[in-house]
Amino acid sequence: MTYCLAIKVNDGIVFASDTRTNAGVDQVSTYSKMYAFGIPGERSFVMLSAGNLATTQAVVNLVERDLAAADPERSLKTVDYMFDAAHYIGKLSCGVQAAHCEPAKEEGIKFDASFILGGQIGDSAPEIYLVYPEGNYIAASPTKPYLQIGETKYGKPILDRIIAGETSLEDAARCALVSLDSTMRSNLSVGPPVEIAIYRNNSLALDTPLTFDTDSPFYQAVQRSWNEGLNRVFDDLPRFDWESALRPVSRSGE
Amino acid sequence: MTYCLAIKVNDGIVFASDTRTNAGVDQVSTYSKMYAFGIPGERSFVMLSAGNLATTQAVVNLVERDLAAADPERSLKTVDYMFDAAHYIGKLSCGVQAAHCEPAKEEGIKFDASFILGGQIGDSAPEIYLVYPEGNYIAASPTKPYLQIGETKYGKPILDRIIAGETSLEDAARCALVSLDSTMRSNLSVGPPVEIAIYRNNSLALDTPLTFDTDSPFYQAVQRSWNEGLNRVFDDLPRFDWESALRPVSRSGE
Repeated sequence: MTYCLAIKVNDGIVFASDTRTNAGVDQVSTYSKMYAFGIPGERSFVMLSAGNLATTQAVVNLVERDLAAADPERSLKTVDYMFDAAHYIGKLSCGVQAAHCEPAKEEGIKFDASFILGGQIGDSAPEIYLVYPEGNYIAASPTKPYLQIGETKYGKPILDRIIAGETSLEDAARCALVSLDSTMRSNLSVGPPVEIAIYRNNSLALDTPLTFDTDSPFYQAVQRSWNEGLNRVFDDLPRFDWESALRPVSRSGE
Repeated sequence: MTYCLAIKVNDGIVFASDTRTNAGVDQVSTYSKMYAFGIPGERSFVMLSAGNLATTQAVVNLVERDLAAADPERSLKTVDYMFDAAHYIGKLSCGVQAAHCEPAKEEGIKFDASFILGGQIGDSAPEIYLVYPEGNYIAASPTKPYLQIGETKYGKPILDRIIAGETSLEDAARCALVSLDSTMRSNLSVGPPVEIAIYRNNSLALDTPLTFDTDSPFYQAVQRSWNEGLNRVFDDLPRFDWESALRPVSRSGE
């Protein structure tokens, strides 16, 4: 499995992904699922991928081939809008999935992949899109301005509690890290290192993504701070009425 | 959908469930999914249900019929062990599912249901079991002493962070409430009121379950305390190095 997310706040976009891939429990590997494309100063894209690794790698190869081509029919260099870019990725993905040998398809084997594509083209507004395996796509909602692919449920509650348009880019990045950490604790198919890229509006360029492995001091500090903090908040939750009545001195000495 | 869980700690068992049922978005209703059975002083069971409502209601009817029968082949009165009780529930559930009309089965329509059954028989140890739709069943692990059915993922991270054998019954009940609250915030198919039952070891009896609706002062106090606490912990997370370097005064005034 995989867990990737993108958060679009007023100041820009945060992209985050795990790096674990698996096909059965004895074929576990580490691959980046975050790809940056663009022309500095003109347009900038980040793509996150989930699903069949052969499909996602083929889509990335095609995106790069079209970018390098002298006169491609369409590429991330030629699209005029972010939704055009999402449409292009969806078309590539469907084409790759349809190209697989017939016997596998007759057996119902799927080569599904999902993508998140975000970025900015010139002076148009930055956007994020989720591209479904079927090739169609949606933008994020203004009130829940994030998109997720892969193993999405474990890490959703913290996003629902924290993320809003006015969240700072750094807070959005921290929230993405916590959301990934919660997912990795509860599900073995999502694993470190974690990659985080921060796109600042109108920069039309991307710094090198941050990589956090389990031994990274910053990631360890966030983990410790979050876990201790949660336990502290939990200990401070209101007591049931019988607890204060029956056990005024110690609630744990029952 | 549904979300039910049982937590087995050293002092007893906590059972918790939501009450929303739905068959499509325009058939949403409220049903309790928590059933108590037993003979005070002799044996005590709580059952939680998820899945097809017709199946779970039929299973409950059969459990009650067998309990009332003068000389049943088997019932929750006659089983000697908790695993016998789980086996009995599994058998009933399979029988109910198999009783449905053939055309539906040929179309692949399923009448799946899952159950959690917990309790204590005489002076044997209290236990909790998850009964799968296929009728087989598992007990909880000593290191992760909880079981979940239904929409389980949103509420799992908090259980993984808080629950251990030595957790008090009251803390386990609070954790169940938070786990349900996180799930209800992130998923519309799980809804209030929430029911919580607390079984104390060797009591062989059960108090009336607690019911918390959205307007219950205790539930509101827990929700507020948890949400404000989480936001406080989040605000105290470590800063990225460039934040302290670039913005020593205010991190939100970016």
